[in-house]
Amino acid sequence: MSQQEDCSFCQIARGEMDTEFVHEEDNVVAFEDLDPKAPVHVVVIPREHVTAEADLPAETLKQLMGATQTVAEEQGIAEGGYAVRINHGADAGQEVDHLHVHVLGGRGLNMP
Amino acid sequence: MSQQEDCSFCQIARGEMDTEFVHEEDNVVAFEDLDPKAPVHVVVIPREHVTAEADLPAETLKQLMGATQTVAEEQGIAEGGYAVRINHGADAGQEVDHLHVHVLGGRGLNMP
Repeated sequence: MSQQEDCSFCQIARGEMDTEFVHEEDNVVAFEDLDPKAPVHVVVIPREHVTAEADLPAETLKQLMGATQTVAEEQGIAEGGYAVRINHGADAGQEVDHLHVHVLGGRGLNMP
Repeated sequence: MSQQEDCSFCQIARGEMDTEFVHEEDNVVAFEDLDPKAPVHVVVIPREHVTAEADLPAETLKQLMGATQTVAEEQGIAEGGYAVRINHGADAGQEVDHLHVHVLGGRGLNMP
C-alpha cells in the first residue's frame, strides 16, 4: 500500500495527527472536517494514497463508498438525507492531494 | 441486472427517452443534467437500478466512478477541477431513486 510521508491525510491515516476517527475499517478511516460546511461533515479517506477513485482497487473503492453510508447511518443523517462529495482540482476547492470523500448532512444542508 | 419499469433513469438507460449519451460503457451511461448547476453538469448512472453505492458489485462501482473521470476529461474540466456529488434522500435534494453521480465543472463552479 502506497503512502506519502508529507501528506497530511496519510499522516492522519497512520495515526500521527491525534485525529479522532469517527469510523475505521481496514482500508478506510473517517474523521470530522476541521471546517464543517454542514451540521454533520465527515471526511472519509482510503489509507492508501491515491488521487482519484479509479486508482483504487475495486474492492477498496467499494469499501470507501460503503463507509460513507455507514458513517451517514452512524451520524444519524441517513434517513433525512446526506450528500457525498468528491472534489478534484483547484476549481472544485480540493486542498489535499489524497482522495477524500465528504459526507454532509443535517439541518440546513444546502445543496446542490 | 435489475431494472424498474417506472424509473425515469432506467428508461434513459434503456434508450427509451431520446436522451443523448455524452458517454457510454457496458454498465454505465452519462447524459447532461436537464437543470445544470454549472457550465458542465453531467449525470452518470449505472444501467442497473440500485439506490446506493454499496448495492453495486465492486467492479461496476469502479466502472461508475472511473466513468466520472473519463467524462471530466472528455468535457475538458479534468485539468481545472471538477466536483463529483451523490445526493441521498430529501435533505440532499435527491429527486430520482436510482443512484446517480453528478459531475460538475467549468467557470463559476461554486463549491463546496
